[in-house]
Amino acid sequence: MSIPRTATTFAPPVMEARRWLDGVTHPVDRPLLNVSQAAPVDAPPAPMLEAMAQIVLTDPAAHLYGPVLGLPDLRAAIADRWSQSYGGHVGPDQVAITSGCNQAFAAAIATLCGEGDEVILPVPYYFNHAMWLDMSGVATVPLPTGPGLIPNADAAAALITDRTRAIALVSPNNPGGVEYPAATLSAFRDLCRSRGIALILDETYRDFDSRTGAAHDLFTDPGWDDTLIQLYSFSKAYRLTGHRVGAITGSPARLAEVEKFLDTVAICPNQLGQRAALWGMRNLDRWLAGERAEILDRRAAITDHFPQLAERGWRLAGCGAYFAYLEHPFELPSDRLAQALVAGAGILCLPGTMFRPAADPAGRRELRIAFANIDRAGIVELFARLAAFAP
Amino acid sequence: MSIPRTATTFAPPVMEARRWLDGVTHPVDRPLLNVSQAAPVDAPPAPMLEAMAQIVLTDPAAHLYGPVLGLPDLRAAIADRWSQSYGGHVGPDQVAITSGCNQAFAAAIATLCGEGDEVILPVPYYFNHAMWLDMSGVATVPLPTGPGLIPNADAAAALITDRTRAIALVSPNNPGGVEYPAATLSAFRDLCRSRGIALILDETYRDFDSRTGAAHDLFTDPGWDDTLIQLYSFSKAYRLTGHRVGAITGSPARLAEVEKFLDTVAICPNQLGQRAALWGMRNLDRWLAGERAEILDRRAAITDHFPQLAERGWRLAGCGAYFAYLEHPFELPSDRLAQALVAGAGILCLPGTMFRPAADPAGRRELRIAFANIDRAGIVELFARLAAFAP
Repeated sequence: MSIPRTATTFAPPVMEARRWLDGVTHPVDRPLLNVSQAAPVDAPPAPMLEAMAQIVLTDPAAHLYGPVLGLPDLRAAIADRWSQSYGGHVGPDQVAITSGCNQAFAAAIATLCGEGDEVILPVPYYFNHAMWLDMSGVATVPLPTGPGLIPNADAAAALITDRTRAIALVSPNNPGGVEYPAATLSAFRDLCRSRGIALILDETYRDFDSRTGAAHDLFTDPGWDDTLIQLYSFSKAYRLTGHRVGAITGSPARLAEVEKFLDTVAICPNQLGQRAALWGMRNLDRWLAGERAEILDRRAAITDHFPQLAERGWRLAGCGAYFAYLEHPFELPSDRLAQALVAGAGILCLPGTMFRPAADPAGRRELRIAFANIDRAGIVELFARLAAFAP
Repeated sequence: MSIPRTATTFAPPVMEARRWLDGVTHPVDRPLLNVSQAAPVDAPPAPMLEAMAQIVLTDPAAHLYGPVLGLPDLRAAIADRWSQSYGGHVGPDQVAITSGCNQAFAAAIATLCGEGDEVILPVPYYFNHAMWLDMSGVATVPLPTGPGLIPNADAAAALITDRTRAIALVSPNNPGGVEYPAATLSAFRDLCRSRGIALILDETYRDFDSRTGAAHDLFTDPGWDDTLIQLYSFSKAYRLTGHRVGAITGSPARLAEVEKFLDTVAICPNQLGQRAALWGMRNLDRWLAGERAEILDRRAAITDHFPQLAERGWRLAGCGAYFAYLEHPFELPSDRLAQALVAGAGILCLPGTMFRPAADPAGRRELRIAFANIDRAGIVELFARLAAFAP
């Protein structure tokens, strides 16, 4: 008797956490601080909204089916941008558009893995990656990261078996927030190439990397597409989460396989969202630079104000992109702590148990704070509530 | 050595057919007739465009993440509509919104099947269903339909094994165009219930059914959701193909499983498309009735003008919804015929080989015409070209 695909995995963490809010009322002077999901809370900037409204009214193609692999102009714009910003060559035929970055990951795995294969994920991992692997009949092989949350290629090498098809990295990391050093990524690329497996690199948060210049040199390798599959999302950069537009960059042969998956699960990415993303790439560089500065300031607020938590036994395990990854000082396991924080402190965040396999005890000590959702004042308030909280 | 999921299936037929156009020029007095894809060729009606532009400008939530299972108001609107039009009870918690109907099918299968399971599809089938089953490690068990293209529940009963998890029907049918009688659907429901498997009913084309009143009484059964999973698309009704909005109707327990799949492959359906669909349900009933009348008139044009093809040995195997399903009189197999028709007659349509397993010889005689894309004059022209064509 087979087990249905969905029965092999867990319930969506974000939706589960949202249900913890049911029946809880928050005092007027202590409104809920929702730091559970990495999601902009405002609409895109007004000029983009006006451009989108104009497209809705004047471009019939924005309402109709388009190519499975996405709008050619958007594919070309990403190819140009990656070529320039990473200092290598990426062609339009090496880029496809997806309905969000989760779908890009799902498509990548579908081209790589069959039943019983294995994919290595550093822990803590992004839970939707683990869920998709579960539902694909692929074993998630956790790669411990230790202090700093940076994975080590030599440690990964020891985990590779003849069923391993890929190592998937997220940098800047979700949930850990850390930015992987370029040398780390090169080492993983070399490892993957030498073992004939793929390196999947999810760069959803690349636009909020604190480093100036290219975060890695993987694309400067002329043969990059024999190993690398890069994923991207327009959701955060232009506040387009509700339009579902992401991208996958890889070899043309791989994208021909990706096309089968996307055709069957989506037919095409939505047309208006693609046009908005393209408009953003052409018009919002300066605006996005301001967004990045704001996120980096919020990140600075996290480190500025963390000492008050540190002296109460909290530890900041990672911080960057949209996330602070905390270790709490309590005996209470994080899944129960996170639920207690809803009524007890007016905070909704996700417990580390959602980012690690059930057997990994480290998750019980961890909380993920999606700080991009709240401003400096909100961060001050958040830390004050955490400092005052005792389970 | 496992085979990657995408390597187990074929290339997307619509994109493959589109590539047949490469390098072919069409005379000015004989422009291409593209009847390859079931897709509106115009934008939604102007009042809907204005409503959408307004939403873009004034509703921030239209740009942000929403619930995985869709906009509550839209779920409720479908529940109400189904309850009224089918004469039964469907609750909002029995409806979820998907990023198009293909995704609804994929989600349903993910909740039902694991590796090595089987799903019965009448042939000819909708190719994306077969592709998803392939990529899910699920065997497609073809159910022959014979003249009239109506499947028979007794014949299906003989194909059920202990690995069978569902029978999936499409009515009105793609590619066959035929509307399944209510008694046929009831018989399949009874069969599925008695054998403990699911009945998936894809009603993408329900709004263009030629029958007045409910097309079936499956929802009048108070326990319908123990067996039935119904799928729907907003793409055709309101010309929203480019916005990717569909729906899945089933038990709340099943939708909790669907949520895992949708969260991982899409996070949420796109927000503007959902709002447009809701606006359509609230405002476009009369307009949609006109669209239906136009499609039915095109269908009548098919039967009116078919005799000129019949006398040349063609046969109309099925006609309805958006499709005419033809048997051609030539020795040439349909996949080669369809390619020859591009340059030879300025027609792009899909061969029957794309709608049946490779081992099924019937596909070699068949062509699918997505006639909804062309008006009466276009249908006259199409048939004149087919009548004049000899490979």
